[in-house]
Amino acid sequence: MNDAAIGVFDSGIGGLTVAREIKKLMPRERVIYLGDTARLPFGSKSPATIQRYSLQIAEFLLKRGIKILVIACNTASAWALEQIEAFSPVPVVGVIIPGCKEAAKTTVNKRVGVICTSATLRSEAYPVGIRALVPDVHVVTRQCPLFVPLVEEGWLEKKATDLIVAEYLAPLEKEKIDTLVLGCTHYPLLKPAISRFMGDDVKIICSSEATALEVKKVIEKLDYLRENNGEKDLYYLTDFSPSFQRITGLFMEEEQIQVEQVDISSRSVS
Amino acid sequence: MNDAAIGVFDSGIGGLTVAREIKKLMPRERVIYLGDTARLPFGSKSPATIQRYSLQIAEFLLKRGIKILVIACNTASAWALEQIEAFSPVPVVGVIIPGCKEAAKTTVNKRVGVICTSATLRSEAYPVGIRALVPDVHVVTRQCPLFVPLVEEGWLEKKATDLIVAEYLAPLEKEKIDTLVLGCTHYPLLKPAISRFMGDDVKIICSSEATALEVKKVIEKLDYLRENNGEKDLYYLTDFSPSFQRITGLFMEEEQIQVEQVDISSRSVS
Repeated sequence: MNDAAIGVFDSGIGGLTVAREIKKLMPRERVIYLGDTARLPFGSKSPATIQRYSLQIAEFLLKRGIKILVIACNTASAWALEQIEAFSPVPVVGVIIPGCKEAAKTTVNKRVGVICTSATLRSEAYPVGIRALVPDVHVVTRQCPLFVPLVEEGWLEKKATDLIVAEYLAPLEKEKIDTLVLGCTHYPLLKPAISRFMGDDVKIICSSEATALEVKKVIEKLDYLRENNGEKDLYYLTDFSPSFQRITGLFMEEEQIQVEQVDISSRSVS
Repeated sequence: MNDAAIGVFDSGIGGLTVAREIKKLMPRERVIYLGDTARLPFGSKSPATIQRYSLQIAEFLLKRGIKILVIACNTASAWALEQIEAFSPVPVVGVIIPGCKEAAKTTVNKRVGVICTSATLRSEAYPVGIRALVPDVHVVTRQCPLFVPLVEEGWLEKKATDLIVAEYLAPLEKEKIDTLVLGCTHYPLLKPAISRFMGDDVKIICSSEATALEVKKVIEKLDYLRENNGEKDLYYLTDFSPSFQRITGLFMEEEQIQVEQVDISSRSVS
């Protein structure tokens, strides 16, 4: 048993979907979340900047005595997981490996699509991860830079959204994939529009649930599960504007969460 | 005569349009530009964060011995101009007052529209600025959060872009405005789509040229004009990803500019 909290971070609030799945699976566990809203998005930035920001966040959470660190951001998982593992005294779980495992289990025709940010695409983390599990798989990756702003604007069911979805996904549809990985924690909110375009035969993988299951597996293996309810969860954001207040509601549905603002930009890791 | 450079900053690269207008008007002047690409966008962030970032950038440029500081970002002009003026030893010019002056000169029916970021909208800098010049003017302001990502994606002439333009601008069209201010340095790239929707009777104001004229006026008044060509212009970005390389081309057209990457996040101003 280990009563310490589970640390979870994302560039913004998309990772709240992962935090929520963790709480669903392990309701007694305590979550400390950080969303780097003062510096988001990460997906259009360079690897060096993504790594610097991710390491600062990891340091912030590790100082709070967490027992496991969850990178609930695809871009940070793609570029900073190994660097964080190299100095973290606790296990680190990213969202990409669980998503790859789920895709490998799901595909029948061995043709998998992945949609993600520009930085995640350039990392090739998804094709490499899926091929490690299914060597003869065909993986097609597409970046969808307008999806994050569409979700943040709350435009989930507009005609413009359908046109954007069609333009980004047409090349995947032509590839006859049977499995599509949503490789960014914002994208699950666009799942209805994406499903409409891709059709019912294409299985859609959101890594939030798979990641929460992976976290549970690691915690159980280490015998770290809490036996009693602990203190309240903590949600930190590095910036808290009216837009983020509105968007947080989109990601957490009916739940009310208390958020605290914090500055991490001058921490020592570089 | 003062041979020092003109400092220009923006949250990203939209402000390059202002730098370009300055160079067109005063080709001998030297520009030192900073785009805070590691932390953009500013328009969705809180006033406190916008002010902190803007002050760090101003400090960075002032240390380079500039003779005038140009805030080529509407959001930073809206929230940080007064704070920067309070400690800057050199004159400070923002983009909002020049845009307001231009709108005041242009409107005939005294009905003006302004499109801008969420943060600029909340500041009310435009309605306050235009009303100071035309007391009985009617100003309607709209935020257009998807315009910046559309421009950065290069989607200037797509059907989805026209739908988004129509949805954001329909309320302005109903208001029978005769003048529309593009209150964000990214928006001029969408001017064709915006003009198509608003019609030829609505005059569109881009503040880049008006701002460059204001800078020239201040420099001439102080007798600061250079008489000889100086060193090369300097362009700093806080992050330089492949996406920014591509977008920089959109803003600078044929010109080739040399860019250097710099870290300003740990500077002392807070």
